[in-house]
Amino acid sequence: MADTTPIRVAVVGATGYAGAEVVRLLARHPAVQLTAVTSERDSGRRLTEVHPYLGDLGLTLEAASVDAIADKADFAFVALPHGTSTQFVEGLISRGLRVVDLGADFRFDDVSVYSEWYGEHGAPALLGEAVYGLTEHARDAVTGARLVANPGCYPTGALMGLLPLASAIDGPVVVDSKSGTSGAGRAASTAQLFAEVTENVRPYKIASHRHQPEISEKLSARATSRVPVVFSPHLLPVARGLLSTCYVRLDGGIDVGGALADAYAAEPFVRLLEPGAFPEPRNVRGTNMVEIGWTADPSTGLTVVLTAIDNLGKGAGGQAVQNMNRMLGLPETTALEALPALP
Amino acid sequence: MADTTPIRVAVVGATGYAGAEVVRLLARHPAVQLTAVTSERDSGRRLTEVHPYLGDLGLTLEAASVDAIADKADFAFVALPHGTSTQFVEGLISRGLRVVDLGADFRFDDVSVYSEWYGEHGAPALLGEAVYGLTEHARDAVTGARLVANPGCYPTGALMGLLPLASAIDGPVVVDSKSGTSGAGRAASTAQLFAEVTENVRPYKIASHRHQPEISEKLSARATSRVPVVFSPHLLPVARGLLSTCYVRLDGGIDVGGALADAYAAEPFVRLLEPGAFPEPRNVRGTNMVEIGWTADPSTGLTVVLTAIDNLGKGAGGQAVQNMNRMLGLPETTALEALPALP
Amino acid sequence: MADTTPIRVAVVGATGYAGAEVVRLLARHPAVQLTAVTSERDSGRRLTEVHPYLGDLGLTLEAASVDAIADKADFAFVALPHGTSTQFVEGLISRGLRVVDLGADFRFDDVSVYSEWYGEHGAPALLGEAVYGLTEHARDAVTGARLVANPGCYPTGALMGLLPLASAIDGPVVVDSKSGTSGAGRAASTAQLFAEVTENVRPYKIASHRHQPEISEKLSARATSRVPVVFSPHLLPVARGLLSTCYVRLDGGIDVGGALADAYAAEPFVRLLEPGAFPEPRNVRGTNMVEIGWTADPSTGLTVVLTAIDNLGKGAGGQAVQNMNRMLGLPETTALEALPALP
Amino acid sequence: MADTTPIRVAVVGATGYAGAEVVRLLARHPAVQLTAVTSERDSGRRLTEVHPYLGDLGLTLEAASVDAIADKADFAFVALPHGTSTQFVEGLISRGLRVVDLGADFRFDDVSVYSEWYGEHGAPALLGEAVYGLTEHARDAVTGARLVANPGCYPTGALMGLLPLASAIDGPVVVDSKSGTSGAGRAASTAQLFAEVTENVRPYKIASHRHQPEISEKLSARATSRVPVVFSPHLLPVARGLLSTCYVRLDGGIDVGGALADAYAAEPFVRLLEPGAFPEPRNVRGTNMVEIGWTADPSTGLTVVLTAIDNLGKGAGGQAVQNMNRMLGLPETTALEALPALP
Repeated sequence: MADTTPIRVAVVGATGYAGAEVVRLLARHPAVQLTAVTSERDSGRRLTEVHPYLGDLGLTLEAASVDAIADKADFAFVALPHGTSTQFVEGLISRGLRVVDLGADFRFDDVSVYSEWYGEHGAPALLGEAVYGLTEHARDAVTGARLVANPGCYPTGALMGLLPLASAIDGPVVVDSKSGTSGAGRAASTAQLFAEVTENVRPYKIASHRHQPEISEKLSARATSRVPVVFSPHLLPVARGLLSTCYVRLDGGIDVGGALADAYAAEPFVRLLEPGAFPEPRNVRGTNMVEIGWTADPSTGLTVVLTAIDNLGKGAGGQAVQNMNRMLGLPETTALEALPALP
Repeated sequence: MADTTPIRVAVVGATGYAGAEVVRLLARHPAVQLTAVTSERDSGRRLTEVHPYLGDLGLTLEAASVDAIADKADFAFVALPHGTSTQFVEGLISRGLRVVDLGADFRFDDVSVYSEWYGEHGAPALLGEAVYGLTEHARDAVTGARLVANPGCYPTGALMGLLPLASAIDGPVVVDSKSGTSGAGRAASTAQLFAEVTENVRPYKIASHRHQPEISEKLSARATSRVPVVFSPHLLPVARGLLSTCYVRLDGGIDVGGALADAYAAEPFVRLLEPGAFPEPRNVRGTNMVEIGWTADPSTGLTVVLTAIDNLGKGAGGQAVQNMNRMLGLPETTALEALPALP
Repeated sequence: MADTTPIRVAVVGATGYAGAEVVRLLARHPAVQLTAVTSERDSGRRLTEVHPYLGDLGLTLEAASVDAIADKADFAFVALPHGTSTQFVEGLISRGLRVVDLGADFRFDDVSVYSEWYGEHGAPALLGEAVYGLTEHARDAVTGARLVANPGCYPTGALMGLLPLASAIDGPVVVDSKSGTSGAGRAASTAQLFAEVTENVRPYKIASHRHQPEISEKLSARATSRVPVVFSPHLLPVARGLLSTCYVRLDGGIDVGGALADAYAAEPFVRLLEPGAFPEPRNVRGTNMVEIGWTADPSTGLTVVLTAIDNLGKGAGGQAVQNMNRMLGLPETTALEALPALP
Repeated sequence: MADTTPIRVAVVGATGYAGAEVVRLLARHPAVQLTAVTSERDSGRRLTEVHPYLGDLGLTLEAASVDAIADKADFAFVALPHGTSTQFVEGLISRGLRVVDLGADFRFDDVSVYSEWYGEHGAPALLGEAVYGLTEHARDAVTGARLVANPGCYPTGALMGLLPLASAIDGPVVVDSKSGTSGAGRAASTAQLFAEVTENVRPYKIASHRHQPEISEKLSARATSRVPVVFSPHLLPVARGLLSTCYVRLDGGIDVGGALADAYAAEPFVRLLEPGAFPEPRNVRGTNMVEIGWTADPSTGLTVVLTAIDNLGKGAGGQAVQNMNRMLGLPETTALEALPALP
């Protein structure tokens, strides 16, 4: 790889938690050169002033501009708030860049579902082309894509556990998720102050979070009929980490352990746990790994499937880089091999 | 109250988290005199050495002995590990004391369920007499009881939310609970070290925790038929606090908000939340309060009921004192009025 | 007390952390009636909507107005940002109210020191009258005061440990303090987000914090000559709690333990620790207590004095109520007896 | 490097926090093959069962034996409790291995100081040969050493900040340190339970911790006369991270910023901060980095020097691997380049 010209990469929205995670991973990526990082709030400042932990990568933050980025980069990660990224992504694609969008704008197959939950869509034409980048379940499509819609953190956690079982799902699914606060972003907020979050767990948007239709749409696409989902997010006093506890009724015939092994035994980013062992976010912290465990409850007939990811890893920046690796024909694990620093 | 002779009270197992919480509450109880506190590990030490935050109550820890306690006390709280408390409680009752047992030994109606989950029962005769002390739902029985079995923390959380709806429950119930670590006790442990618990959430005993049959038995007793329950406990990086997110299918006719208001509108320890607001453990920290919220999910037809308690408050020591207050004919809120110290 | 007319009390700035702590304590105060609570941001909302944990006290937040408060209250706590409280306090005093000001505006004896650190003073005349309310060290003056300046949290912690030794101090004093985040207030902030604070300790304003001159002025007033102080605050991943580790060279003759006992042996809010035991903020959480410990280091000749307070308790709202109790001739411990809810 | 035979390395005490950190780093080290990992408690189990976050490295834990390790490894890290490692290290050295010892047994130049604080020394002959491995300050000696004594975490933090200034130190030094709990190890403990540590900061062994003489000895060796040190450790509710706030009187002539820059400007693992910026442990979490900041306090004439390290990184496993890299003639940063996963 040493003698190839590095790919020039831009990160749009580089100071938020998801964008900074992409920067962190790319800073040690052997085939990539970071050529542009943007931030509206901090444009003009050196990146190292805002995020000293990244060291001095020699980068200065600039305001986001399609033209400026198109001049400097072949590939872009876009980590902008929902809605604002649509036209930005369209501009970059039209200028010939390939893009991983970390926002929600290109995740839905059904534009009417998008509109219902997010408002009118700014670039419906691109929606058809965008690939939903849950990598293990969309590998070939990702490889050739110009535009990958990086899945939401909650859908990633739920779908990694449930998709291999989708064809056997019978009835509604309960997804009860517990997330670290970095999923809510780095904007100033009273509700996210340390003193408001510590020693608490906060349910929010129960049965009304935008990731509910995302999970349902993707699960239904693999099931024999539409799968209704009730999704309950909870905010933990944790910076990074996402655990999803999913309750599902399955057709009697399915071999759960076998189905999960068929789907994931060879996957480098999936750790299937022995029966009776359950996943924990700390075991995947800072990485692109997914831990999956499950058990059956005879008294109710329900199967409980649990997954743990890092919401900024497999749930955002890690999977974004995994998708880029595929899109560029690089080994999928490049720059994603580090082990979590525990405890 | 000032001119009444105070009730002499013993706390057996006073240095564990639940026992110490009872001591904390009784130390400011106007009608009670703490006359004995026991600890096997720390007997002979002054309580204030082990727990300086309680101040100096003038008490020295002693090894637990039925005779010694019966000489000094009229009423006892027993906070011993499951199994070891059975004969101890039996001894105290036979010596004429009234008892609140914070362990599991007297919680079940069906001794065969107890045996299946805990082993052979040491005092099955008393089992019939013991009152399951979920106070709001057993007020009259508690009043006259000699022996009250204080409910488990998880069952308290789940049942306070579900019992008012029990008659309308149709099908299995999912109880997904998130608890602070103090529920696991104060014994030395590697798994409970700060460095093992922080920045994580740990599912454990999914569908196999002993509180699952306790919830199911009590819920079934109020329902039209047996209610199967799948119960999933999760350990939070939180010292105190317990949130339960319950998923249940209800008969179409029920008015959920009305049923909850009927049950609790006049209750001093229940705070019913407006639709769209959800309970948080921090709001009840250090108190005997229960917060309850709910929502209906049209897509699945499930109702989500959420409750927040302090696992050492309403989930243990607070409810124990509430039960004592009733048993002694005192106002139920005595010594339980303090507001949480937030943030 | 039951047949006395309750004192009508207002809390100006009732939704910030310090103001809300005063409200929490007054809500259970037997001689006080809360008649007004103000908030600029939330005026018009019921207090219970903003802070459900306080229960429903029947109070609606209003914008702060001298006239409105003077009509409704005999006594006021003012918890406004530094600078903005000056004229407000002056107005209330001139209308005959007695006031505890929780801000910095009336803490300094030397207006030139105030000006150097905070800017021009808006009511220098009142500065001479205001009593610096470190209660144990200003009891008589507080009793008769119209205006008490509640000490800063850091100065409270440092001075409670050092004042009894002040006459023996020889040379500069090091005060290294570690504080919970609630000391920084409840305003939205990126730096105070949970994800920015957890798993970290953050030094800030080392040797340049406004509490450095406050500590130095008060310490010097009791010493034989001016005592220079270097003060280093550190932000902990803790909501409440303040530990100060103070390093001081003392004249050889002093009996440290004796001097502390002379000052505090009879004090209800001070817990002097045995040699070799050190204070911990958790032991005083939610209370008005101060824990004090110390040791001598033979190798350097320095004495280390450590104190733990709750920055919102003795460091703000607790001491404010303690001062009010004295000003009103009530027992000093009224409404301040609760024990901390540990763990 | 690809065509060299990998160095066979053993980690003795591989399941404790420091040992596991060495394993984590070596697992991604391109020039090393892990051939033996030991644990007394878990011998016979696969390492991945005990620490699933490390993935499956194909290693089974064995009981520690000099012979077994000498057969399998050329190099060993010894992370055993103080005292027990002495003879173990001696045995490995005599069998021709090179060793980094993470314990205290070989850190002191003066065996009488060791004896006073730790008890009789089991291998005083080796003490003379051992190199105190604060790498940046002992680079040449480390390169040729057979035995490197890895510095304690607290001394590493303090000395990295103070050694460049040692020649100008005038009078006693105050080192006030704040550490994560992983420094206390992974053994079961009540004092280290999550519920005992959260929402607190705990001073311990003030002026009596064994790292006090270690700091003093190393500092004195670079100073013009013996430097007395008072050292105060504090336990934070943090898993990893160590901040040291040091107070020192310096000869007037010294240029502090210049002295630090002279020492560290070219160092890959040191980040010198601009004046007014202060180090934070989060910025170095999971890495071998040291952040250093400082300020001068005119009022006392003291200089405050602050350093942040990861107590398991530069404070233990990271520096151990840095030392191994030097001993083996590898680039010093090998396997130590990862950036911290923030937030």
